[in-house]
Amino acid sequence: VLGLEVVLAGGSALRLGGPRLKDSAGLSLTRLVVGSEGTLAVVTEATLRLMPPQPPRMTAVASFPTTNAATGAVLAITASTRPAMLEYLDRPSINAVEDWRRMGLDRGAAAMLVAQTDAEGIAAERELATIISAFESHGAGEVLATADEEEGRMFVGARRDVIPAVERRGRLLLEDVGVPLPRLPALVDGIARIGAARDVEIALIAHAGDGNTHPLLVYDPADQRMVASAHAAFGEIMELAIGLGGTITGEHGVGRLKKPWLRGQLGDDVLELTRRIKHAFDPNHILNPGVIL
Amino acid sequence: VLGLEVVLAGGSALRLGGPRLKDSAGLSLTRLVVGSEGTLAVVTEATLRLMPPQPPRMTAVASFPTTNAATGAVLAITASTRPAMLEYLDRPSINAVEDWRRMGLDRGAAAMLVAQTDAEGIAAERELATIISAFESHGAGEVLATADEEEGRMFVGARRDVIPAVERRGRLLLEDVGVPLPRLPALVDGIARIGAARDVEIALIAHAGDGNTHPLLVYDPADQRMVASAHAAFGEIMELAIGLGGTITGEHGVGRLKKPWLRGQLGDDVLELTRRIKHAFDPNHILNPGVIL
Repeated sequence: VLGLEVVLAGGSALRLGGPRLKDSAGLSLTRLVVGSEGTLAVVTEATLRLMPPQPPRMTAVASFPTTNAATGAVLAITASTRPAMLEYLDRPSINAVEDWRRMGLDRGAAAMLVAQTDAEGIAAERELATIISAFESHGAGEVLATADEEEGRMFVGARRDVIPAVERRGRLLLEDVGVPLPRLPALVDGIARIGAARDVEIALIAHAGDGNTHPLLVYDPADQRMVASAHAAFGEIMELAIGLGGTITGEHGVGRLKKPWLRGQLGDDVLELTRRIKHAFDPNHILNPGVIL
Repeated sequence: VLGLEVVLAGGSALRLGGPRLKDSAGLSLTRLVVGSEGTLAVVTEATLRLMPPQPPRMTAVASFPTTNAATGAVLAITASTRPAMLEYLDRPSINAVEDWRRMGLDRGAAAMLVAQTDAEGIAAERELATIISAFESHGAGEVLATADEEEGRMFVGARRDVIPAVERRGRLLLEDVGVPLPRLPALVDGIARIGAARDVEIALIAHAGDGNTHPLLVYDPADQRMVASAHAAFGEIMELAIGLGGTITGEHGVGRLKKPWLRGQLGDDVLELTRRIKHAFDPNHILNPGVIL
């Protein structure tokens, strides 16, 4: 986002930034408004930097006997390279997709990783070799690598289908917690422990290369005990992420639902500073009241 | 910059962000403090994301008969690709380096471009071909392309030597104006016009691929008329950049020197908002007083 047109609470329209690739004049107000969830100003226009089209991607897929084997492979891969995609699906996710679509995924695997490289030629070959070697040295059962775009799209599609597939099993609470990459195995273990302790079905998918997970908590909205358990687990997962030096939301934002946990992550001082900045933009607190603060 | 430890004006230490690749919890305070030139808080620690080492670079260099030919080549290249480096040197810059180092640069060229690609294999070959084709179709006199890193470093070194080389000719006022890429030719033309009208020697170098230029205004500090002309040209160049939809500072910041022109770029409303944010952080204005605001 290079620039924004915003309308402030008082009604005036301002231009922040603009179509300049580099600009260090004044405070980074564009960056401040991005991700502020409508609490600072109303965005009426955005100027985006366009990127050249990406080259065709090569895909590598593997299934793992344990979740730790899969998260260990993620750490090994990201230690030396940054794949364009590195997605994680656990057994409940794989089976939910397989129940729905029958794609021939490995139902017995504890987890599956889908990696893609957008490098080209020798660089792509080298990145793919790094990925496959990490898969194999972490006990991957089946490893598949393909330059065929259609086949690659099929596996990416399986990952994309997880949310609607799990949604067929009940109402969802969609989590978005993230941690520093080295803590990913601890986060994945801890989420499973919380699910077991609360007797809540949790399917786990993750943008694993970013340390950002989406636990999908399944519940029956008609079963009050189950609703309470799911919401308790939802909070415990955020507390787990905070305890691991992580975040309650990697990409979806705080909104109203996660507001009670924001203080635990940011601390009183940062929340107080946030409140003062909010006040500087919107002294009467008329913009998206109840969100974030 | 993933995270910061900062000390506020009141003396409290806060942690903003942290070692998480994705985090959307609360306002982007890390981003706001970065580039605030010490006016919001004192940064006492920074957490940076490290990138994998870059592959060896290939280099392409060309000299051009006119500055418009060179800036036209920049627009042609950046229309379809993003080279790792795309640097511009004008004739006074080339000659200042050549006077100092005698590298065999083309003293008669109006401008020179130094491009590098950090792609690999076929992707590097394709990017280099795009660059060379743009050079040639814009009337480049000599075009040199090399995969030899030592040779590439020599040309990058020539670009790096421009500032000390021009400094041998007098005292410098170092500008930092940038524009949206399509306006780069107009900026380069306008800077030359201002230099001629004010009778100020200006050597122009640019991170051309970013639309960010560094006009180097040369003057004799003992000659009061020349000092006044150089400062007048310095201001006119910023006004030119603002008129072209650009910025008074692409990367160096506002500081004290450029403060009088900031209002012209941002406008009253954005400055007023900036003032309110400054006040939210530092109500007694004790942090870096006189900078930006």
